[in-house]
Order: sequence, then structure tokens, then C-alpha cells
Amino acid sequence: MANQNDAGQTVRGFDAQELIKIKRDGGVLAPDAIDWLIGGYARGEVADEQMSAMAMAVFFRGLDDAELSAWTTAMINTGERMDFSGLSRPTVDKHSTGGVGDKITLPLAPLVAACGAAVPQLSGRGLGHTGGTLDKLEAIAGWRAELSNAEMLAGLEEVGAVVCAAGSGLAPADRRLYALRDVTGTVESIPLIASSIMSKKIAEGTGALVLDVKVGSGAFMRDIDSATRLARAMVALGRDAGVPTSALLTRMDTPLGLAAGNAVEVAEAVEVLAGGGPADVVDLTVALAREMLAAAGISDVDPADLLNSGRAMDVWRKMIMVQGGDPDAPLPQPRDTETVRADRDGYLTELDALAVGVAAWRLGAGRARKEDPVQAAAGILLHAKPGDQVTAGQPLITLHTDDPARIPRALQALDGHWQIADTAPARSPLIIDRIA
Amino acid sequence: MANQNDAGQTVRGFDAQELIKIKRDGGVLAPDAIDWLIGGYARGEVADEQMSAMAMAVFFRGLDDAELSAWTTAMINTGERMDFSGLSRPTVDKHSTGGVGDKITLPLAPLVAACGAAVPQLSGRGLGHTGGTLDKLEAIAGWRAELSNAEMLAGLEEVGAVVCAAGSGLAPADRRLYALRDVTGTVESIPLIASSIMSKKIAEGTGALVLDVKVGSGAFMRDIDSATRLARAMVALGRDAGVPTSALLTRMDTPLGLAAGNAVEVAEAVEVLAGGGPADVVDLTVALAREMLAAAGISDVDPADLLNSGRAMDVWRKMIMVQGGDPDAPLPQPRDTETVRADRDGYLTELDALAVGVAAWRLGAGRARKEDPVQAAAGILLHAKPGDQVTAGQPLITLHTDDPARIPRALQALDGHWQIADTAPARSPLIIDRIA
Repeated sequence: MANQNDAGQTVRGFDAQELIKIKRDGGVLAPDAIDWLIGGYARGEVADEQMSAMAMAVFFRGLDDAELSAWTTAMINTGERMDFSGLSRPTVDKHSTGGVGDKITLPLAPLVAACGAAVPQLSGRGLGHTGGTLDKLEAIAGWRAELSNAEMLAGLEEVGAVVCAAGSGLAPADRRLYALRDVTGTVESIPLIASSIMSKKIAEGTGALVLDVKVGSGAFMRDIDSATRLARAMVALGRDAGVPTSALLTRMDTPLGLAAGNAVEVAEAVEVLAGGGPADVVDLTVALAREMLAAAGISDVDPADLLNSGRAMDVWRKMIMVQGGDPDAPLPQPRDTETVRADRDGYLTELDALAVGVAAWRLGAGRARKEDPVQAAAGILLHAKPGDQVTAGQPLITLHTDDPARIPRALQALDGHWQIADTAPARSPLIIDRIA
Repeated sequence: MANQNDAGQTVRGFDAQELIKIKRDGGVLAPDAIDWLIGGYARGEVADEQMSAMAMAVFFRGLDDAELSAWTTAMINTGERMDFSGLSRPTVDKHSTGGVGDKITLPLAPLVAACGAAVPQLSGRGLGHTGGTLDKLEAIAGWRAELSNAEMLAGLEEVGAVVCAAGSGLAPADRRLYALRDVTGTVESIPLIASSIMSKKIAEGTGALVLDVKVGSGAFMRDIDSATRLARAMVALGRDAGVPTSALLTRMDTPLGLAAGNAVEVAEAVEVLAGGGPADVVDLTVALAREMLAAAGISDVDPADLLNSGRAMDVWRKMIMVQGGDPDAPLPQPRDTETVRADRDGYLTELDALAVGVAAWRLGAGRARKEDPVQAAAGILLHAKPGDQVTAGQPLITLHTDDPARIPRALQALDGHWQIADTAPARSPLIIDRIA
């Protein structure tokens, strides 16, 4: 497109500041304008300071369905798009918006693979209180996150599940934009979150996608309304891109399971694969597996059976070994522990997810900056969950760390964020809604 | 201030992204946070992409009185503040928010000096359709805009008026922020406009200030409500900084006077100094002079008398000569002209300020980028103003340029933006309101 500016000079393309003003004033950006903006940003023609102003304008004004679709497509078009159509298995992936103790990928990927699908789980590292799947798996001796494309394809065909680091070639504009939003106070925008997640997942080449959208104190979305809007936006983007997508809204007011951290979460995932583990982790793993199998067109198996039969565990062991890990190696143990005990008899009525996430983070399980290391052994074990009856003096929470100096600040994060009362709290269902 | 982040590390100062989020979410920034933000931006510790996101958040959320005062003070504190208290004359300055044909500074500064005040008029160059005072004066052979501080002080003491380029040491954060806002769609924010203008004017060291806030199609503020809010914000900032400030709201729907450009505006200013000139230019010059003299505590002279007596012209000639200019040199004449004529008999009911400003700009009087040159001879002469009776075929508008290729696009800017009707339009007063 060629147009003239007010001084009469001919200009190629668009002006970033004009597009910012359109969005700022509540207007709608045309698809070719969005394509130019995102492509120009990836090429360095649109400056960081322009993109952050645009992101803030989008924070206030939003994007309509057509704008969001164009924005996401433009992000995908800045990089490569993987293609798994040559595999003999149907591919299906799961993405969680992040929660405390959310180790579901660990049992889920081998379980769905055991049922006949292929799960190309390209993951990131943790930042802040929610932890990252790759950080958790790196607690296993020898396991490595980086795979070549050929290794990934072989893993998907032969084992059926691969959990590895996303290559830098997928939606590179998203990588740059996400880092920019992180330092400019523009992360909390539903269309920007939706396009960031979906551009990577669509570029990853999965045939179908199931989203686990978390709601609650330990989640990015604090209320059901926001989570519903985010889920609807992402499901629509998947459909527009030809990737059948559904979403479960799940509660994240208290941690999932009884472990939050790295090695402690691997241990809990292995329990689930062995047919045991906490009920909430088992239930969510099975529910998400059913969604994924339905999306992949596999209807003849019940994933609950494959957990109990040990077939999912067999796939887990292969999946870990293919990436250099030793599934039989003992997991790292912390140098120091500290226990928080019940101060009275009663029912545990509250155990706040965010507080546990921040405590695990402060113990060394997570990172404050993306270049920081994490401690494999750091984390938290819970001995009771909301609704459980407890007695004065019994252990409630055990803190794990290699660095005892971190314990006081972790205890401080927990302080006041658990409660014991005379009567049991009402139980809330883990799965709030399904959006497809 | 030292505080701790969520991972427990001690951090000095503030986090830019946290301040952006506070403003984004409708909160109030503390004075020390604003001081850190603006100072950090000037020192390069707060990045352009953070400042543009903050500017966009301010666009949507505004700044309250205390925030605006802190913001302006912080901008002033990034540079030097001049001091004219050693002069024998009281200092008083005028600032216009910019309009088409607004050459008022040219007769006003020598007029007020002739009345006994000193006018330290530190000006900028034009960008866009409104033209710049320095560009206009540079149409005079030999005149130079750059003065040392010693030359400026000498000019103020001896002549009483200096119109020169503002040094880069005054509110340097404003210079950087203004350039950033220009490319990030964040210019149109009343608190950011107010703090930009007032930080420079307060740093300039004037003892009192009169603002000419333009309203209408050719002005930055299109409606009286916005202009009133801007004027009130600036008057309050002046008062807070100990600089008595008042504002006139004046109409800018049609150009001021009969000339818009560079040399053509100097010629009109000289007519006014000679006791002639268009009534609106004379009226506004005298009204602003009265405001300035009252602010400077000078009550024993009527500025209208000094225009008629030629004493203001004497000061003008000295003011031009002190800066190397020859007040008797012929002004540059254009290589080419084009005339627009009345297409019928009747009353001129409309002659749009913005259209005339854009046409003058396209003829070469203004610049699209700050590094562009301007043509001294380019501009527009009007032969009638709204309310005047005209006859078919008489000249209405004459276009001046050194580059005839520019004429078609200038004509296009004017097309449809003037109207002749059977009945005379209602006259609107030039001065709409006074705010002090």
C-alpha cells in the first residue's frame, strides 16, 4: 500500500504512530495494518517504544475478533510453522495458563500417548510463582530439554510424547513482544495473552489443542469472567486457524495436589502414573486426557484404565529415557527442611495457592529473572488440603530448600494464608466450565 | 527508598513497570515515584518503551493535581533553571499553544518591552501546520536564533525583548519525552501537554507568564472544554511554581490576520508595529500585552498608545539588529504565486484555519520532519476574512512558494474549506475566556 502524508510525500506501508492513534481512540485496525505492524516489529522497523504504546492502547481498548485473529496470524507468520501431518498418530497438545503445583503435563503427556495420540508439548521455563514444566523435568538426572526437529519427530512417532523447549523459530515476534510487555506493564491484556499463547501453539503444528484455563488466587486470571473471556478468545483463534480447540476452566485457589516445586512435583507425577497420587491431580489428568483424545478422534479407550494398568508409566519411562533422563535415578533431596504445624484442632478451610507459589519460589524453586538458576530440590509438600480434618501440632506444610537463609521469607509468604476452623468448608468442584 | 521484590531481593528505588501498572489501573503515583521516573528517564535508567507505555497510561487515566505538579517539577529538575532576578526590569513571557497565522509574538514582545518589562521569549521551531516563531524571524536577512546566556541577558536589559532558541539545558527530559510522544501516539494528553509547556517556561526563569490557549479547527485543542482544562492545569502549575500565570482562550477557527507563512507574517507584524495591520492581530496583541503588563506589575501605560506612537517599532528594530538581522532588508519574495478567486457574490462565511495551515505547510512554509528546511517566502495571503463581502472573480487567497510543483496539493488542501453565502455569518468574539 502506498499513501501520502499530510505534507504530500509518498509513504510506503503504514505509520506506526497513526495505527497507535487509531487503537488509542477506539478504532479498528485493518488486517493488513496489523500484519504490517507485527511484521515490522519482528523486522525492527516498528520500535519497541511504539509497540509498548500500542500494547497499552490494546490494554485499554481491546481487539475485536477480526483484529485478534489478524494479530495472531501475523505473529505466526513472523516465524516457521511446524508440520506433524506425516506422523502415523494424530497430534494433540495441552496448554495450561499456569498454576501452583500444576504438574499435570508430566502424567498427562505419556497417558495420552499411551492411548494412541502424539503429544508435541513445547514448553517454557517458569518465571514468577507458577513454575515451568522444563524446570521440573530437569530435576531428573540426565534429562535435557533441547531437541532437534528430527529428534522431536522420532520421539513423537516412537514414544508418542515429547516435552521439550520451544525453538526460537516459532512466532519470534511473540517472544520479543512478551519480553517487552513484561517490562512495560502490559502483560494483563486478554487479547494479548490469547494471541501470545495461540500463536505459539498454532505455529507448533499440533492437530488439536486442549486448554486448561486456571481461575483463582494462584492463577493469572483471578475471576471466572476474565477466564471465560480468555478461553473463548483462544478457542475461537484455534478454530479460525483450523486447529480444533476446547478449554476447561479449572479452579486454582489452592495448589494442585500436595507438591509445589521441581523434584517434589516429579515425584507426585510418578505416583499418579503408578495408579496413586492425590485425587485432584488424577481427576484433572483424566479429564484433560478425555478432552484431548476426543479432539484427536480417539474414542475407544478410557485413560483412567491406562493409569491403573501401568501402560502410561511405560510411556513415561521411555519419554524420559529418549531425552537422556534416568527414570530410576533418585530425585534430588533438599539440604534443609522446615515444617509448619497446625495450631489447633479443626478443619483446614483455606490454603492459598498464591502464598504457596510465592513460598516455593522464595525457597529457590522458581526464578525472579529469566537468567536465574532454579534449585531442583526446592519446593513445598503439603500434608493436608482444604476440607481435611487436622489436629493441633500435626505437620501441615514442609518447606524444602538447599539454602536455609531462604526459609524465613518463605514462612512469611505463608503466614496468614492458611486457616483452621471448627466446621468443614464447602467443597468446590475442580472443573468449573468447559468451553468449545 | 529501598524495598524488597517478591523473590526477596532488596531493590533500590522503584520499578518502572510497577509504576506503569499503578497508573494503568487508575492509581495515584507518589511524588517521589514520579521524581524517580522522570529523573531515571533523563538518566537513561527508565527505557523509552517504559516511558511510552506510561505516557499511554497517562493518556487514558490522567494525572491529578499533585501528580501533575510533581511531574512538572521533576522535568524542571532534570536541567538548569535560568534566573533573571538580577535584571532591572520585571520579566514576563507569553506562550501560545499554536495556531495558523499566529505571529503575535513578533509585535507583542517589542510592545511589552517598550512598556518597561523584559520579555525572555525562548521559542521552538515549527512542526506540522502551525509554524514556528524562529522560522518566521529567520526570513529576515542576517537574523540568528542562537544566543549565549550573556547575549540573552544583555538583550533583555538593554532592549527588553529577546526571541531566541531555547537551550538544550532547559528541562531536557521534556525534550526527550516530547520526541518519544511524537512517534508513539501520546501527544494528545492534557496533563502531558501542560507539563511539557510549563516545565520549559518555568525553567526559562520568567517572573510571570501569560498563556494564549487556542481553540478551534486550526488549534491543538478543538473544543472549549479541552482548552479550558488545559488552561486551568497550566495556570495551576505556574502558581505552584511561584510564577504568576494567566491564560486567554482565543478562537482559532480561521487564521489570525491575513498572512500565514514566514516572510508574509513578518511583513504583517511590521504593519501592526507601524500602527496598522489587521484588526484581529492588533486586538489580540494589545489584549495579551495588557495581561502581561498586569502580571509584571506595570499599570501606568496603555500598550495601544505605544503601537501608534512608533515606540514599539523602535524596540522591534533594536531587537532584530541585536540578533544580527537587518530590519530594513527587503523580505524574500516567492518565485511563484497562484490565486484562488471568489466563485460568486456574497459573504465569506468560512475560511478554515487548518486548511490554510496545511496549505501553507505544503507550499514549503513548514516542515514534516524536524530536520527539514523551510522556505522563507512560502505562505499564504488572504484577501478576505469570514464576514467580509466579496464579489465573483475577486482574489480570495494567494499562494506563495518557491516550488510550483507544490501548488496542486496546497490547492487541494483549501478545496471545500471556504464558503460564500448570501448572508453574513454571526461574528464570534476572538477572546472567549480568561482563566487566572
